[in-house]
Formats: sequence, structure tokens, C-alpha cells
Amino acid sequence: MKANALKKIKDIFKDRCLTDKLSRVQYSYDATQNMFLPDVVVLAENTREVSQLMKIANKYNIPVVPRGWGSGFTGGALNVKGGICLSLEKMDKVVELDLDNMMVWVEAGMVNYDLQEYVKPYGLFFPPDPSSWKFSTIGGNIAENAGGPKAVKYGVMKDWIKGLEIVLADGTIMQTGSKNIKDVAGYDLTSLLVGSEGTLAIITKALLKLYPLPEAKKTIQLAFDDMKKAAAMVNRILLSGVIPVAVEFVDKDAIQTVKNALNADLPRADAILIIEVDGSKSEVEQQTDKIKELSKKEPSIVSFKIAKTKQEEDEIWLARRSISPTLKQIADGKLNEDIVVPRSKLAEMIERLQKISKKYNLPIVNFGHAGDGNIHVNIMYHTDSKKETKNAFKAMNDVFDECIKLGGSITGEHGVGITKQDFLEKQIGKAQLELLKRIKQAFDPNNIINPAKMRL
Amino acid sequence: MKANALKKIKDIFKDRCLTDKLSRVQYSYDATQNMFLPDVVVLAENTREVSQLMKIANKYNIPVVPRGWGSGFTGGALNVKGGICLSLEKMDKVVELDLDNMMVWVEAGMVNYDLQEYVKPYGLFFPPDPSSWKFSTIGGNIAENAGGPKAVKYGVMKDWIKGLEIVLADGTIMQTGSKNIKDVAGYDLTSLLVGSEGTLAIITKALLKLYPLPEAKKTIQLAFDDMKKAAAMVNRILLSGVIPVAVEFVDKDAIQTVKNALNADLPRADAILIIEVDGSKSEVEQQTDKIKELSKKEPSIVSFKIAKTKQEEDEIWLARRSISPTLKQIADGKLNEDIVVPRSKLAEMIERLQKISKKYNLPIVNFGHAGDGNIHVNIMYHTDSKKETKNAFKAMNDVFDECIKLGGSITGEHGVGITKQDFLEKQIGKAQLELLKRIKQAFDPNNIINPAKMRL
Ligand SMILES: Cc1cc2nc3c(=O)[nH]c(=O)nc-3n(C[C@H](O)[C@H](O)[C@H](O)COP(=O)(O)OP(=O)(O)OC[C@H]3O[C@@H](n4cnc5c(N)ncnc54)[C@H](O)[C@@H]3O)c2cc1C
Ligand SMILES: Cc1cc2nc3c(=O)[nH]c(=O)nc-3n(C[C@H](O)[C@H](O)[C@H](O)COP(=O)(O)OP(=O)(O)OC[C@H]3O[C@@H](n4cnc5c(N)ncnc54)[C@H](O)[C@@H]3O)c2cc1C
Repeated sequence: MKANALKKIKDIFKDRCLTDKLSRVQYSYDATQNMFLPDVVVLAENTREVSQLMKIANKYNIPVVPRGWGSGFTGGALNVKGGICLSLEKMDKVVELDLDNMMVWVEAGMVNYDLQEYVKPYGLFFPPDPSSWKFSTIGGNIAENAGGPKAVKYGVMKDWIKGLEIVLADGTIMQTGSKNIKDVAGYDLTSLLVGSEGTLAIITKALLKLYPLPEAKKTIQLAFDDMKKAAAMVNRILLSGVIPVAVEFVDKDAIQTVKNALNADLPRADAILIIEVDGSKSEVEQQTDKIKELSKKEPSIVSFKIAKTKQEEDEIWLARRSISPTLKQIADGKLNEDIVVPRSKLAEMIERLQKISKKYNLPIVNFGHAGDGNIHVNIMYHTDSKKETKNAFKAMNDVFDECIKLGGSITGEHGVGITKQDFLEKQIGKAQLELLKRIKQAFDPNNIINPAKMRL
Repeated sequence: MKANALKKIKDIFKDRCLTDKLSRVQYSYDATQNMFLPDVVVLAENTREVSQLMKIANKYNIPVVPRGWGSGFTGGALNVKGGICLSLEKMDKVVELDLDNMMVWVEAGMVNYDLQEYVKPYGLFFPPDPSSWKFSTIGGNIAENAGGPKAVKYGVMKDWIKGLEIVLADGTIMQTGSKNIKDVAGYDLTSLLVGSEGTLAIITKALLKLYPLPEAKKTIQLAFDDMKKAAAMVNRILLSGVIPVAVEFVDKDAIQTVKNALNADLPRADAILIIEVDGSKSEVEQQTDKIKELSKKEPSIVSFKIAKTKQEEDEIWLARRSISPTLKQIADGKLNEDIVVPRSKLAEMIERLQKISKKYNLPIVNFGHAGDGNIHVNIMYHTDSKKETKNAFKAMNDVFDECIKLGGSITGEHGVGITKQDFLEKQIGKAQLELLKRIKQAFDPNNIINPAKMRL
């Protein structure tokens, strides 16, 4: 980086401009465990600073990678081409809580969990709840269009973002969207920015919708002796008019690993569904009854359990929450992707995953957000075996191919980032990829923001 | 238009290529009553034809204006710069009904009402229901991001569009989106296209979500002796957790006109709210009770009525539905805009409208989708009075200014089109307008699709 540029950056950020090796290493990782050193890390405290920084970066053609808490799964926050790591972590405050409109303006670096805690006393919550909510920022959640277990009923980030304050590559500050419930003046820039993986602009603030905390909820566990029947059941429940908050599923291998690791009291089954319903007390009763009724008609169900206490609820969720941490008991290597298929294709996709597992003789552990057709596929292999390692990557290739054939997507919530670039074109085609590049150019003609992402 | 180009177009469309004066006049209008003659009208029957047409238009630099049924309120379907009127009216079929995923692929020229009739036997409906549903197309509804009375609970077009088939200016055919509930591979082109007013691409097919028809519904009429109290009530109901399907309001002048014109039995009031709730029978009971309870606490309510029969329901809706057609009894001239403000500002906006009415000594009749903060403002004037005419336009200017000051938008559902171009920059600023232009360029480098719209 030109000394000139660096000096200007130091003038703005003073001791919040980090150039020592240790700091740079600290900001060189994300959840992919890849490592790319930024040349400099800056910790912005306000939008004006971000704007000033972008002007310099744009002038000197220095890559800028915006960063929340670095919990992304696809390398989005990595400085693949060096340059500036722009951390938003210090921009973590609530700017305006508007109870009348049930909306809140927050700075982009606010941690999702902190926001939840902030609005809870008002009887409100912010529905998108990625499992990483305690260590990921609203800005990162927006950039990835993150979802969580609650997405079945409440949707994902894009359903809750009303507006943004952004800084363009040339330093221009602008606001998109508004508090208006309907607003069709101009293109919907807000939606375009959600899920843009930090490639179009720096998000500095966000206007979020909030929702009243539900009066009651209930957790149900269904165990099946046939995985495909479990997948089919998901669709049957949703078509019946019951919209649960969450419908998570866990397959046989996942059940077994958790059983072994935690000595947990889990039913012997081919698959488990965990269903949560919420609403007013009577709504919760109605929904639970309906699920009970549907379950009675399904012979593949080997156990049906409704949590009666908070402890029973926690026990049911334990199976789901403990999978990731216990997977290493199967093998030390793991390829982990978040494919998604139309809900009606869930059973078929599971079948194809089982075939792929057999073909390469590798365990594939599946769990995830069944209610959204979103499957976390974990291909397990031993890293000291060259053959297994090679096969694991081949198997993942097959997984993506089969998923695309079923009209699915290579990513439901983790993004394309740098890790899935090769598959993006396969899914959306060359012409569409070219269009995305032209849109990127409209925002960032010199391609300085996150220049290595999404093949842009 | 070059003879060469016209010949090629005729070769594709044969007798569906209309060049006679009468046909061109027929396609020169929309609901604005402005008139711009296209050079040629083509009635496309499939996507391939649209693609072939665009290739020719792009090569010869001929403007193309896509058109549904021409019911738009802002001149979007008008060939302001001549060229080709591309009518989608013959592309009006259901392509695939997918009951498992509760989605449907339709051609863009399908009339909204025809779709509703098609899916009704399956116990489903398509929630967005603009008042023009019987004479507007899904393509036009998407282009304008149309909403309807049901938007309070069910949202607008963008909430129900999962994917699109589009044809770019250069003839490229591509699909955006998918049946996947979550999908973050690439930018969200679908959302960008919804509400783009036919400026970015030609929409040839759309993938829509459907929803189960509710079991029950109920219509309630509340009359107030104070318009501002009525506006405040809207927010109170929504904050109480009741989400009605529709919350429409009608102001004093509107009530009076309808009373005079139809001899209707309407309460003497400063404002009327019409509220509809739907859901399961018990949900409907609960919601009705809650509204009743809230109403009891509001002293400005002079009458409370729950429809007990279909006929009573129709009578309640009559007041709302008859306003537009009866307005000419006040004056022959009408400026009619669909501003929107954050819901919490509704009462304040109404107050400002009353002030503007006094300032210019012109009746302003207001009604609309109060639940969305969306007000249809009708400034009435006598066209034979130069002064009134001039004042009406001045008043509308003030209306937009006040609306923007309150954080509102110049259009909630009708779009910017050609009629509100001057106000778009006021609302979103110069920098954002420039960004929109660059996005338009990314799609359509020669600016041939709807080149006169939105100041693009
Ligand atoms: C254990 C674990 C569980 C997870 N569970 C889920 C889950 O349930 N659902 C789900 O959807 N995801 C999940 N994720 C992945 C998810 O993408 C991230 O946790 C989160 O959304 C990223 O937030 P972050 O602040 O850490 O962003 P980072 O990792 O720092 O950045 C992610 C991307 O966003 C961009 N970015 C960050 N901030 C901004 C900004 N202000 N402006 C513009 N671009 C920005 C970055 O450039 C990068 O491309 C999980 C991750 C982990 C490690
Ligand atoms: C009496 C009346 C009541 C109305 N009520 C409502 C209401 O309640 N809510 C509401 O939101 N609106 C309402 N509107 C306005 C509304 O915008 C239109 O009725 C409708 O959305 C336009 O559909 P159309 O097929 O007539 O489109 P057109 O008028 O033909 O076109 C409208 C715009 O869409 C573009 N377009 C059309 N088809 C395509 C396509 N296939 N691909 C790309 N672009 C395309 C056109 O270029 C144009 O810019 C009303 C209009 C009238 C006259």
C-alpha cells in the first residue's frame, strides 16, 4: 500500500488503525479457517470515517473488505487480495428505537444478541436468529441474508430490513428504504443490498422491523423409523395450515453421534423432527393438536413427545444443538455445506445424499432447517487418508449437482463467498453472472469493495 | 422506424403486429388519460418472440414499452418516445401449478382475477389484490409492486414473488429466483425487478406463492367524530397485536359525496374506518373482540357496526368502493396521488392535508389504505377556473413536500412513471438517482426499455 494512502488513513483513525502483525493476523480469519492477511485493519466509529476511508481507498485503488465479527462460513470477510480490513465492530449502538412503528435503527456492527436484549424489555424481538447470533453482527447478517431456525414462520433477514444507510465505494453516503410500509419510489436498493455479501457497499446502519414477543410456545419431538417419511411429514404439516416457528431435523448418524458423545436419552430412530410452535395460548394449543392429529396417522413415527417443562424443552433441543460440536467423533475432516431444495423435494434430496454416501463410502451427516428445505450436509472423512479427502470433495461436487438438478440452491444462508465461486455459475448461468458483474460495477466501478468475492 | 426493422418485426409477429392508426390509438392510453402513439403494437404469444423482438429493437435502437392492460396510474405503459408497444396480453396462461410447494408459474399477461379464479378450487388464493385486479396483469402488478386493501396483513407483490423469467434488452432470456424458500446465491434480482416499472427487463413469466383461503372473515365499520382520532386508532389496533387483513379509511368529504350520490345510509362522521379480519373461526372471534374492546375506550367513536350478513358486509364496503366514481360531483377536475407516510405519522399527515386544503381553498378528499399509511389524496378543482387549476397543482406540490418531510414517500403503489419524475429526486436525492441510472444501464446499456420513465 502506498505510504501516502496509509498516512491519510492513520490520520483519520489514529490508534484505531492497526498495522502490527498480531492485529493483522487476528483479522485474517473467519469460520472457514482460511487465512489472508490484510495490510491494515481499521476500526470505524462512525459513518463519516467510513466515507473518508472509502474516498482514499477508491482514489488509490486499495481493496476494502467490510467485516463484522468474522463468523461467516464462506470467506466473505477475508482480505483475499490484501488491502484494508474495515471492521464495524465499534459501530454497535442503537440509534433510534421507534416503538410506534415497531422499528429500530441500529449501527451495522451491533451484535444480533445485544439487539435482542435491548428490545426485550419492550416486549419485542427481532425474529432472524442465526445460530451465531451471539457472535455475529447485524451488518454481517444482512450481507449474508442470514436466517435461523425461526425462518419457517418469520422469514430471513430480508423480510425484516426496511432501510439501510450505506457508503458507496466513492465515499457517497446514502439512505435506502424508509419507515413506510409501502414505498415504490425508485428501485428496491435495500433488497438488492441484503445478501450482497459485502460486495456492493458498506452498510453502516440498518432500519429493522421488530415483532411482539409471542405469548406462548411449545416444543415437540417426533422420531421416525424412516428418514424419507420424516421429510414428507414436514410438508404435510405446513400444507395443513400450521406454520410452526421451527422445523429442524436430525438424521440417524447425527442422532448416534450425539448419543455417544453426551450419553443422551434419545429415541432410537432414523430421523428426528423438532418442531416449535408459538403464538397466543389458544393458537399454540390448536397447532399442537393439529400436529398430534397428523402424527397419529403416520405409522413411521416411533415416538412423540411434547415438552412439559423448560428442562424437557432444553433436552429436546440438545440433540440439534450438539451435533456440530460432536461430529469430530466420526472423523476429523468435515465438508459442511448448506444446500437448499424446494420443500417438496426434501425427501428426494435426502435419498440422493444417501446414495452419494454409499458411492464414496463416506458418512454424510445431515441436519438442518427442514421447514425451509435447508439441509446442512456434513461429509465426514479422515484427513490423513488421501483417498477419503479426494472423495469427500468429489462427493460434495455430486451433492451440489444433484441439488441444482432438483431446482435447489448451493447456499440457503451462508453465501457464495470465496468457497463456492465455482458453483455459482453452474447454478445461475453465465449470462446472469455477467449481469451481476455489471450491477457490481454500477455500485463500485473500480471493484475495490470485497473484490475477490462471488467471482465478481 | 427503419423499414428494415419493421419488416423483421412483421416476419415474427405476422397478423399480431399492428400498425394501423386505430390499433395504435387503442394502445396509446393508460389510466392517466395521457396519450402517446406507439409506432407499432405487437402482441407476443411466447418468450421466444419477446426475445427475438428485443434483439431487433436493441440493434436498431428502438424504444420498447412493455404493457399489460394499461391500467397504470403514472403513464408507465405509454410510448412517450414512440417505438414498439409490446403487449403481453396474450401471454395469459398458467404454466405450472405446484400444490406441494404452494406456488404457481404464470405468464406475465395473466389477469390477476383470472389467477384467483384458477386457484380457488384448490382452496388457495393469491393475496395481492389491487382494486384493479379485474383489469390488470400479474406483469403490470409486479412492475408496479402493486398492493391492495389486504396489504396490511399479507403484504404487497414483492412479498409473493419467488422468481421471474425475464428477457433483457439484448434478448437474453433468464430466470431469477427459485422455488427454494431460502436462496442466497447471487444478488436478489427478483426483488430488484419487482417495482422496477418495466424499465429493467421484460417480465415474461412469474413464480408466485399462494396461500390457503382463510376459514372465516369479518367486516367492521367504525365511525369517528374526529379524523385524527381515527388515524391514531389504526396504530393502536396494530400495536395491540391484531393484524387485520384490511384497514381502510374514508374522510368526511368522501362520506358526504357517497351519501349524496348513492343516498347511502352512512353514519354522520368525520371519518370512517373499515376493518376486515380473517383466519380460523376462533382467530376471527378473538380479533373482533379485541377491536371491540379497544373501541369502547375511544370516546370519539360515534358508531360501531359488525356485518352479520354478506349484504351488510357489502354495504359497509360500498362507502369505500364508490368514492372514486362519485368524486366528480364535487368538481370535474381531480389530482389524485397515492402518498404514504410511516404509520405513526398518519394523523399528522391528515392534519397537514387539511391545512393545505384551507390554504388553497380547494376540497381535498382523502381515503385509502390506512393500515399501510397509504393515503389516496384527491385535490378537487374546476377545470374551467385557471386559478383553481393552478392552485391544485401548487397544492399537490405542497402535499409531496409535507409527505417527504414526514419521512413519507411520493408513491405507495402507483409508481413514479412519467407523472412524478420531478419529485423522485426530491425524495431520494441526486446521488441515489444517479445510482439507479447506472443500475438501469447494467441491464439495458442502450436504454431502449421504457426509456422515458423515472428520469432514467
Ligand atoms: C457456529 C456458526 C453458526 C452459524 N449459524 C448460522 C445460521 O444459523 N444461519 C445463518 O444464516 N448463518 C449462520 N452462520 C454464518 C453466518 O453467515 C454468520 O454467522 C453471520 O451472518 C456473519 O456475521 P458476521 O458479523 O460474523 O460477518 P462477517 O463474517 O464478518 O462477514 C460476513 C460477510 O458480510 C460482509 N459484511 C460484514 N459486515 C458488513 C457491513 N457492515 N457492510 C457490508 N458488508 C458486511 C463481509 O464482507 C463478509 O462478506 C453461522 C456461523 C457460525 C460460525
Ligand atoms: C381503477 C384503478 C384502481 C387501481 N387500484 C390499485 C390498487 O389498489 N393498488 C395498486 O397498487 N395499484 C392500483 N392501480 C394501479 C396499478 O398500478 C395497476 O392497475 C396495475 O398494477 C397495472 O397493471 P397493468 O397490467 O394494467 O399494467 P400497465 O398499466 O399496462 O403497465 C404498468 C407498468 O408496468 C410495466 N409492465 C407491464 N407489464 C410488464 C411486463 N410484463 N414486464 C415488464 N414491465 C411491465 C409497464 O411498462 C408500465 O410501466 C389501480 C388502477 C386503476 C385504473
